[in-house]
Amino acid sequence: MNRTLEDIRSSFETYLSLIGMPGEPEQLYAPFAYAMSGGGKRLRPSLLLATYDLYADDLAPALPAAAAVEIFHNFTLLHDDVMDNAMVRRGRPSVYAKWGLNTALLSGDVMLIAAYMLLQRTPVHHLMPRLLEIFNTMAVQVCEGQQYDMEFEGRSKITVVEYMHMIELKTSALLCGAVQLGAVLGGASDEDFRKLSRFATEIGLAFQLQDDLLDCYGDENLLGKRIGGDILEGKKSFMTIMAMSLADREQREVLRSTHLDKSLTDEEKISRVKGVYDALGVPRIAEQQISSRFDRALALLGTLKGAGSTQMLASLASGLIGRSK
Amino acid sequence: MNRTLEDIRSSFETYLSLIGMPGEPEQLYAPFAYAMSGGGKRLRPSLLLATYDLYADDLAPALPAAAAVEIFHNFTLLHDDVMDNAMVRRGRPSVYAKWGLNTALLSGDVMLIAAYMLLQRTPVHHLMPRLLEIFNTMAVQVCEGQQYDMEFEGRSKITVVEYMHMIELKTSALLCGAVQLGAVLGGASDEDFRKLSRFATEIGLAFQLQDDLLDCYGDENLLGKRIGGDILEGKKSFMTIMAMSLADREQREVLRSTHLDKSLTDEEKISRVKGVYDALGVPRIAEQQISSRFDRALALLGTLKGAGSTQMLASLASGLIGRSK
Repeated sequence: MNRTLEDIRSSFETYLSLIGMPGEPEQLYAPFAYAMSGGGKRLRPSLLLATYDLYADDLAPALPAAAAVEIFHNFTLLHDDVMDNAMVRRGRPSVYAKWGLNTALLSGDVMLIAAYMLLQRTPVHHLMPRLLEIFNTMAVQVCEGQQYDMEFEGRSKITVVEYMHMIELKTSALLCGAVQLGAVLGGASDEDFRKLSRFATEIGLAFQLQDDLLDCYGDENLLGKRIGGDILEGKKSFMTIMAMSLADREQREVLRSTHLDKSLTDEEKISRVKGVYDALGVPRIAEQQISSRFDRALALLGTLKGAGSTQMLASLASGLIGRSK
Repeated sequence: MNRTLEDIRSSFETYLSLIGMPGEPEQLYAPFAYAMSGGGKRLRPSLLLATYDLYADDLAPALPAAAAVEIFHNFTLLHDDVMDNAMVRRGRPSVYAKWGLNTALLSGDVMLIAAYMLLQRTPVHHLMPRLLEIFNTMAVQVCEGQQYDMEFEGRSKITVVEYMHMIELKTSALLCGAVQLGAVLGGASDEDFRKLSRFATEIGLAFQLQDDLLDCYGDENLLGKRIGGDILEGKKSFMTIMAMSLADREQREVLRSTHLDKSLTDEEKISRVKGVYDALGVPRIAEQQISSRFDRALALLGTLKGAGSTQMLASLASGLIGRSK
């Protein structure tokens, strides 16, 4: 149990590289391999393995499930790119852009099935019904979250509660599922299982709110993308939904119509909307939400019973939210 | 074990109606319910349950897996309709036509996950790894078959062997998986498991060849669709692939270009291509293939050990291929 995150990541990459994938039909498996090689952070398998490591020593039995969640995550990105008509993913052409709709659709399907194939390789057979149950619940929640996210774009009024529910499904469910699989595989008690689930859910919510905040207020150089994208697209982020809930009539009109106003430059649009956010204190509210969820998550780690050092989980959380304890 | 096919179908429909589906988000689950209510033949769950019934008495433990294969089957139809740009399914608008691309994509994903959720409801926990393995293998093969099928449409030369391999994946794998799940749940011996797998594979191949044959030579009134569709679309069916393998240069040219010839009416196109099929004896070859595979499948049923009456499986096969023993 004296592992570092580096050890875990390296074991995971080795396992992933040894999985072996059929060569034929090439048009089905090449996009799969491409999607997996995009250099993601491997956050979800790391969460799973770091959780497992709290309770158990030999990493091997947890590696297939870790691969399952990473494949599932990349499957969701692949199909999301089709639904969002997104041509770029991690700085490269998306599978959708590179191979077209039919291949993106079918390769995604095969990735979803492959996630279950990896889960099935878990050598602890008596846990299979429980692992499958966790995985299924997680997978369905992610789909439900994506559906709400798409629906929100076409709706004029969304409450903060609805938004938080959506990101709990779309973002937290997958982190929560990863942690739950690690906990069950490691043999955590029911109480620890519940606490770890809550930990992952809070971290997921904090991460998504952070993402929404940084899209307007982040450092362009650090993020590697232009600031204000959500504002220009009129995307229903936490920032605009919280602002709408606090705005007067005039501010509401600014929030609603600025991104559609062709007489304004991009800079003007961004600064006008941020002016409303600032006036309403939305960045501070977001900061508070992120901090309190982050703190609550870390505090939960301190109350686990029978677990080893929670340092790896704490660093994963810190790295993700970009702040320290 | 004195059940009839009617008993099995009725138990299955009852089980399916009691599964219960979340109401929200409505745009995700309404297409799912719509896809399941299209009035399919319930062939795959019937095969599963009739196989199970050979070895076991209480139907209940096999019903979740039967629902899983039926949901999986309808998932494949839903995503296939997107890939084929198909607007009609079972005489109604397809989910793709009715709700559009994004909903068809995401509802399909959730159906695939729901299939695993049903599988997970199987109450015989120690069988879960084996059931999951069979289900995964089946699911991946169906995707591979669909990929080959799409690729064939863009290729000029396909061998009969390649075509048979494709339909074994695309059509037989699902029937085979259904029968294998039933066999494992019922407790069949390894030998019976292998024989039943072969039975289902042969039936699947015979069914697909029959489908290809009837598309050119069937009775319009019996089939409820126009004859010659495959010829007019230039579809790579068994008929044209077998014909190409036997044709001389001139006949090959007819097979290759007739469907593109704008100077011909549909009737002329169909009659010209069928003229080549007839001259080469392709309908007779197809008939022989169908008969010999059907006979082999039924003969296999006669060699099972420790199984009850195979009458239900035999009638399912007869009904599917449209001929009797």
